[in-house]
Amino acid sequence: MSHVLILGGDGYIGWPTAMYFSNLGYKVTVVDNYFRRNACKEQDISMLYPVPDLIDRAKIWYEKTGKEIKVVIGNLVQPEIIRRLFDGKMEYDWCINTKFSGTPETVIHYAEQPSAPYSLMNYKYADKTLTNNLRVTNNLMWALRDFSRDTHLIKIGTMGEYGTPNIDIEEGWIEIEHKGRKDKFLYPRQANSLYHTTKIMDTDLLWLGVRLWNLKVTDLMQGPVYGIETEETKIDNRLNTIFNYDEIFGTVINRFITQAVIGHPLTIYGKGGQTRGYLNLKDTLQCVHKSSLSPPKQPELRIFNQIVEIFSVNQLAEKISQIGTDRNHKVEINHLENPRKEMEQHYYNPVFHGLLEIGVKPNYLSDKVLNGIFKIVEQYKENIRENVIFKGIKW
Amino acid sequence: MSHVLILGGDGYIGWPTAMYFSNLGYKVTVVDNYFRRNACKEQDISMLYPVPDLIDRAKIWYEKTGKEIKVVIGNLVQPEIIRRLFDGKMEYDWCINTKFSGTPETVIHYAEQPSAPYSLMNYKYADKTLTNNLRVTNNLMWALRDFSRDTHLIKIGTMGEYGTPNIDIEEGWIEIEHKGRKDKFLYPRQANSLYHTTKIMDTDLLWLGVRLWNLKVTDLMQGPVYGIETEETKIDNRLNTIFNYDEIFGTVINRFITQAVIGHPLTIYGKGGQTRGYLNLKDTLQCVHKSSLSPPKQPELRIFNQIVEIFSVNQLAEKISQIGTDRNHKVEINHLENPRKEMEQHYYNPVFHGLLEIGVKPNYLSDKVLNGIFKIVEQYKENIRENVIFKGIKW
Repeated sequence: MSHVLILGGDGYIGWPTAMYFSNLGYKVTVVDNYFRRNACKEQDISMLYPVPDLIDRAKIWYEKTGKEIKVVIGNLVQPEIIRRLFDGKMEYDWCINTKFSGTPETVIHYAEQPSAPYSLMNYKYADKTLTNNLRVTNNLMWALRDFSRDTHLIKIGTMGEYGTPNIDIEEGWIEIEHKGRKDKFLYPRQANSLYHTTKIMDTDLLWLGVRLWNLKVTDLMQGPVYGIETEETKIDNRLNTIFNYDEIFGTVINRFITQAVIGHPLTIYGKGGQTRGYLNLKDTLQCVHKSSLSPPKQPELRIFNQIVEIFSVNQLAEKISQIGTDRNHKVEINHLENPRKEMEQHYYNPVFHGLLEIGVKPNYLSDKVLNGIFKIVEQYKENIRENVIFKGIKW
Repeated sequence: MSHVLILGGDGYIGWPTAMYFSNLGYKVTVVDNYFRRNACKEQDISMLYPVPDLIDRAKIWYEKTGKEIKVVIGNLVQPEIIRRLFDGKMEYDWCINTKFSGTPETVIHYAEQPSAPYSLMNYKYADKTLTNNLRVTNNLMWALRDFSRDTHLIKIGTMGEYGTPNIDIEEGWIEIEHKGRKDKFLYPRQANSLYHTTKIMDTDLLWLGVRLWNLKVTDLMQGPVYGIETEETKIDNRLNTIFNYDEIFGTVINRFITQAVIGHPLTIYGKGGQTRGYLNLKDTLQCVHKSSLSPPKQPELRIFNQIVEIFSVNQLAEKISQIGTDRNHKVEINHLENPRKEMEQHYYNPVFHGLLEIGVKPNYLSDKVLNGIFKIVEQYKENIRENVIFKGIKW
């Protein structure tokens, strides 16, 4: 079975991805430097429940399934670390079989500082976000160039790269007719935060790598992800993924549900007309896996819009308020002054066909799904610290 | 008179800019970390003539004109250094009057690794280029955000950001009509090197800063610059600017003239149909100065295409060959296998009205101008090392 290398394997999506591929029989190697965990400690942000470190999770996974996930704890900002993952000279921080699993057929790159508010808190975090995200992508691109141009790179971008344009959002590319001539370009992108802007830059870098060195890249423009459980986390609750409910690292649906559970008014920023595409954590796993099964045959920057349905923040708040009320929570909705610079009412019409065409079967945000998340959050209700929820980071 | 802060003040354009503004009576502060000089030493690349270091040049300038250019030697990748240039806590490495010149009304940002081949030599230089260029721009943007949002930032971009699209190149912005709806976007950009891609990223960063924090930015999409002399360098030849004739840091016209002078065949990459916009070093000074005189009145990312005429590489080689032959040099033209990935025949039609409209009077590439450059290069003929000219760095 082929070898999948997962960068950022300790994260909200990274760890479930590692288990998903491992469960399917792939050789899996994960790398992480605990950036997210350390940032949470630094900001005094606690998660819904404690999560064992990456090495312990890999041990538990092995205990429960007999399957090995090799672990490297390291900072990929250092080019040498990435290169050792390709030349076989890496020493693992945990593994069962010390032998190199071979040049990865697929690299899944999640190793980025993922929070828009964090990227705009102050000049130091801005510098850290920019440096981390861009250097890791660039180092990875050079490792592919130097060691394995046929490896399929699956990169997580964000729908936020497009911003909220007044025209339909295509899947990454657009043909422009101008003064009687035509050409095809990357779809114009203008994001509303520094974090999202680093993802635009990643796309530019990878497009350069495809043109200069014939790399094969799938860039997944992901919407905000929600959810907590996957088939693999059900095996043992110590395998649960990191779950943040704060304004920095928590995504909106997860935050709102947590707020509903402890009776904190749902924090809508401004009018609440902000409209985005969303997907379930389980669907992220499907999207990444299906992408890996159908890599570009030729050098290509292939872009998919990774969302399955579209909601405004107001629609989300209403849905969550209704389910919360049904579950006997007292749910209020609070329209706060918007700490972000963004349009609160806007046109939004993105295309998202590509992933469905390669076989992804969406899990929609049904009442059943919402109830499932509520149920787990309720189990950990005692852990939730209200003062973590909202500190009002201004952009 | 107002205060102009010049980042990258030791460079090919930076130092002439410093003298130009100083001569006009501005208070001038320059900052540099000698990145270019150190890279040249590391690559064993010598320049046409030795150039005193930045502090010595400032001393000579003061001696000859009685005008002070304050000097800071420092690496702007460190955010604290940039911030001290705004909060008045900077200690100068050289100055006459130790008093802070006040918050700069204008910042001219040249502090970038400027070579496309250097950025693609290997993964280390790629990382260095990316890190230097992006961090400096980001640190600067945050300093403006935190200390002085009304300061006018003049940033040197590059025409290379646009690449060679099959449609006309507008000045930075384009209106796109798509499926019956319209919006205005940054003109689509796709560069052919990592260096040029960092400039695309700079533009994205600054556009974010304009939208989030109401910054006032002029981004000058500059073509390759040629020339050696300015009104100020005539004062004393120790005030001459850095002049590279190698493939890494030398721009094409300067390189070809140097090659002609020592009888080295002119190094055309591939077919030579590569077409670009060019300008004289003197015109860069005018463009930057005229931009500073008419800053955006409202928060804006104002983009000008900073070129004055368009040539193919073949046309340049012919011009230089002709003048060289007239000056009794034996000039041959050699079409080398192209070490770069670029189109050698392509459509190219950029707009460049904006700078002419604010008063720039172009110095075109006349025979007189070419003869003037030849004359100076001939004076230093004995210094030219043939083995520096071409090493064949592949992209």
